[in-house]
Amino acid sequence: MMNPTLQALPPLDRDVLGKLFGKSLLLTTDWTTAELEALLAVAARLQARDHGRGGVPADNALIPNELAYAVFFDNSTRTKSAWAGAASRLGMSPVIVDGSSTQVSHGETAVETGAMLGMNAHAMGIRHDLILGEGNAFMRDVKKGIDDYLGATDKAQKVPVVNLQCDIDHPTQTLADLAWLREHFGDVDAIRGKKIGVSWAYSPSYAKPLSVPQGLITLLTRFGADVTLAHPEGYQLMDSCVGAAGKQATESGGSFRVVGDMDQAFEGAAAVYPKSWGPYDLMLERVAANRAADKDALGDIERRALERNAKHTDWICDERRMGLTEGGDALYMHCLPADIGDEVTPGVMAKHTVNVAREANWKVYVIMAMLAVGKVEGLADRLG
Amino acid sequence: MMNPTLQALPPLDRDVLGKLFGKSLLLTTDWTTAELEALLAVAARLQARDHGRGGVPADNALIPNELAYAVFFDNSTRTKSAWAGAASRLGMSPVIVDGSSTQVSHGETAVETGAMLGMNAHAMGIRHDLILGEGNAFMRDVKKGIDDYLGATDKAQKVPVVNLQCDIDHPTQTLADLAWLREHFGDVDAIRGKKIGVSWAYSPSYAKPLSVPQGLITLLTRFGADVTLAHPEGYQLMDSCVGAAGKQATESGGSFRVVGDMDQAFEGAAAVYPKSWGPYDLMLERVAANRAADKDALGDIERRALERNAKHTDWICDERRMGLTEGGDALYMHCLPADIGDEVTPGVMAKHTVNVAREANWKVYVIMAMLAVGKVEGLADRLG
Amino acid sequence: MMNPTLQALPPLDRDVLGKLFGKSLLLTTDWTTAELEALLAVAARLQARDHGRGGVPADNALIPNELAYAVFFDNSTRTKSAWAGAASRLGMSPVIVDGSSTQVSHGETAVETGAMLGMNAHAMGIRHDLILGEGNAFMRDVKKGIDDYLGATDKAQKVPVVNLQCDIDHPTQTLADLAWLREHFGDVDAIRGKKIGVSWAYSPSYAKPLSVPQGLITLLTRFGADVTLAHPEGYQLMDSCVGAAGKQATESGGSFRVVGDMDQAFEGAAAVYPKSWGPYDLMLERVAANRAADKDALGDIERRALERNAKHTDWICDERRMGLTEGGDALYMHCLPADIGDEVTPGVMAKHTVNVAREANWKVYVIMAMLAVGKVEGLADRLG
Repeated sequence: MMNPTLQALPPLDRDVLGKLFGKSLLLTTDWTTAELEALLAVAARLQARDHGRGGVPADNALIPNELAYAVFFDNSTRTKSAWAGAASRLGMSPVIVDGSSTQVSHGETAVETGAMLGMNAHAMGIRHDLILGEGNAFMRDVKKGIDDYLGATDKAQKVPVVNLQCDIDHPTQTLADLAWLREHFGDVDAIRGKKIGVSWAYSPSYAKPLSVPQGLITLLTRFGADVTLAHPEGYQLMDSCVGAAGKQATESGGSFRVVGDMDQAFEGAAAVYPKSWGPYDLMLERVAANRAADKDALGDIERRALERNAKHTDWICDERRMGLTEGGDALYMHCLPADIGDEVTPGVMAKHTVNVAREANWKVYVIMAMLAVGKVEGLADRLG
Repeated sequence: MMNPTLQALPPLDRDVLGKLFGKSLLLTTDWTTAELEALLAVAARLQARDHGRGGVPADNALIPNELAYAVFFDNSTRTKSAWAGAASRLGMSPVIVDGSSTQVSHGETAVETGAMLGMNAHAMGIRHDLILGEGNAFMRDVKKGIDDYLGATDKAQKVPVVNLQCDIDHPTQTLADLAWLREHFGDVDAIRGKKIGVSWAYSPSYAKPLSVPQGLITLLTRFGADVTLAHPEGYQLMDSCVGAAGKQATESGGSFRVVGDMDQAFEGAAAVYPKSWGPYDLMLERVAANRAADKDALGDIERRALERNAKHTDWICDERRMGLTEGGDALYMHCLPADIGDEVTPGVMAKHTVNVAREANWKVYVIMAMLAVGKVEGLADRLG
Repeated sequence: MMNPTLQALPPLDRDVLGKLFGKSLLLTTDWTTAELEALLAVAARLQARDHGRGGVPADNALIPNELAYAVFFDNSTRTKSAWAGAASRLGMSPVIVDGSSTQVSHGETAVETGAMLGMNAHAMGIRHDLILGEGNAFMRDVKKGIDDYLGATDKAQKVPVVNLQCDIDHPTQTLADLAWLREHFGDVDAIRGKKIGVSWAYSPSYAKPLSVPQGLITLLTRFGADVTLAHPEGYQLMDSCVGAAGKQATESGGSFRVVGDMDQAFEGAAAVYPKSWGPYDLMLERVAANRAADKDALGDIERRALERNAKHTDWICDERRMGLTEGGDALYMHCLPADIGDEVTPGVMAKHTVNVAREANWKVYVIMAMLAVGKVEGLADRLG
């Protein structure tokens, strides 16, 4: 008899899971909603098992003796350890390398790198998030290299590529956020009709990537939420993401609007996600400076970005704004690390410390689910 | 019937081992003597098994499919590979990251880092040894973050934190040293009443941390040894460590004294541990310079530390001084790497090459024992 | 009954394999031809199994719960992931560290490092290729440290050292190249009597090590090939390698000659291997500059090396030169990454994209074979 916890979870869709075998996750918008639901159902099972509620042994070693290789072109605490934790739990060997120590910095092409890694590794994670127009393109090139190579040889091996944050999206983060919203609100369809505020917030620390807010608006609008995006003038997101959010909201029966006032994102919201990102025009300027490897120019852009940020120090998630939310008690969300005192007041953070940790904890199960659906044939039967 | 080698080893204390489940090792002074004995008894069994004397299969895979994550804020050859070797032997996946590549360098708090890593990893190792007052505090904050998170959620997971060298102590090193002293002298109680000299020695290479001598005097004095600490003026250790050493020596029936003459540490000693460390006042100056991220100041402090060291080039472990020891034949010890020609003469080192290697080899079993006692329920039964 | 694929592979030589237990691979010239054949026969079996043609389960976990530790003193994409992929497939835990993050940069000796790593790890990979006269010597010192330590203690552990590229040779690359030549030409003895051209080619990117061409001429001449080495004046290889190539060619019934014209290496060749390396005199100048840690001098040498390279931009593998080869259709080979447009035209590379990927793919099986022969007793029986 099935364990009651597993029974209460959304059922696994065998047909859809079958189609996910070998699949990469480069943008959530590349996946159908049914595919995302199947992935999240797997993640929920893996979480229940790992938290000891699954009624089955803790051993999830579905992918023994395989290599889970991740390349990071930017710093990471959470995602590196989530990748390693996910791979280890599945019996894979996690190896993490810094992009700067590879020959990629010697001008090797991404397609070539992909072919190489695809033959040696069994799954690939990549973080490449600092330069607009480059990170996701790099991942696609790596994937093309892998596919070309595997297609041309007789290797049956599947090597899914997992986007661990690019210039456009941060899918393992936003899917973890969605899984947490569902857990918190207690229902798979819980965000339908709920107001969720995604807002820019002030940060003095560095010009952060756009991928989290972009990923949020393109993901949450698919599930019927009423999403409000707030940011100061000049902090717009990529047109393609804003466009997709609007279109999807219409299709899903939700809504999407962009406003220039942080309060509006909070008014009546069931959940708020205030976080900083860099000014759009300066993020674009970075592209050319990076191609020219012009460190002075990059430093100057960073300085100007922080000056620009400093004009909006009042964009903070504080007690007054939380008071505007539904019942004055919205769920505070953040991908962490938050700049406490700048993006959010110490008091608001203190109240939600466990919430943001539980939110973050979903990432390891989303990555496990990605690896499991991409790598394990007959996964539904294996998960019981 | 139990294998004779295992029978000759100190017995495992089931009650004490039961209490060590989930426990971190941040300072040896946090542990009772009975707890340290239990840990060392486990280490001795793991060594016997790994060296093929255990009469049981070499497979120690007590912790499969779990992640042993280590963060290093300073260089390491021995400890990195000992961590990885310990984790691998237990079936864990070792992953080692440099602190500079995490978001910790973006100002993330240690408590926050701890929460994140605690949910993703199954055990944590940390080296953070260069700044007085900071390394151990960082580890405690990480541990608090892990405990807060695990306490607030429903995860049964235990995530012990292992100090892989901090500003105060280097417990996996000093416990390896103690295990080696016992193996060398052939008895668990072997250091009782033995004179052990811990001495400063000259080094021109860099201002080394205080953690090894501090860890030695606070550990060895608990087991009845007569410990002499020798150093030039200005090279004192932290008051708290010196105080603890004196108090413990009284309690254990041993003795502890601090002298200003290297010869006195050697006279009649059964074992000597001559190694360099930085001048105390300059190690303190480093704190402010490090907080200000003032590279010039740090460089200047380092330069002055080496100038100060250079006034004491005669503090070397040479043949004459070894001649002062018990029977002229004391055991030479070092945590390695030693500055040969400066801390120790080539001749003394050559005579003890295998000894220091056997000493060093204990570290992998101490770390294995730490992971095993912290992670494996019913460990005594599993080890047979 | 044995699987047909395995039956078609060269048989495993039990006697020779028995002697390879515990053996390191530092130079192919250290191994007898029979030993190299035994290694390649193992690699072929591991490839067949991993590609799903072996008729046995994909699980190659012959070395569970052991640590495969690699230290890289130079960048790497392919070899790092090949090392990790090989170790993972065998059930080992791969850990890769950058040489700069170890205490080796604090002046620790290689012998000492070897002793330490030898006790903690179960196999060691090292890349140390930038300084003539140093990389292979470092590896030998590490091996000596391991052997001294294991010899002096009671540990049965075998810790083979694998050269992942040094100043003299790149054996896992050249053995992969040889395995690919045999696969491509469809026969174990396929290169006997075949003309193979190894040629310098122009690169503007950096002064590349000599190890690949040196390794190729010393390996291929042992198997009866007619090897032509072509390079501009000033780009000679180490005398010892050129001398060995000539001697071996005579012994094997092949031939070896050095020419100053790229075309001659292509005329009638069945396979060509055009790749860049640095000017010999400047590679020697680098030795002193590196010992003095003189960054300005190293930068100046690099600048002059690229100036020198730029006098030979016509040394490119293009369609005209490929037209000179056997049937105008030689196999193009490269260790990758190639400088497309400089070492080789885009058209030639495009035609051989899958070939160079299949060539590269052999590296993971050569490393697996190295680890398996060095670590697994009774390997022939285990591989079936």
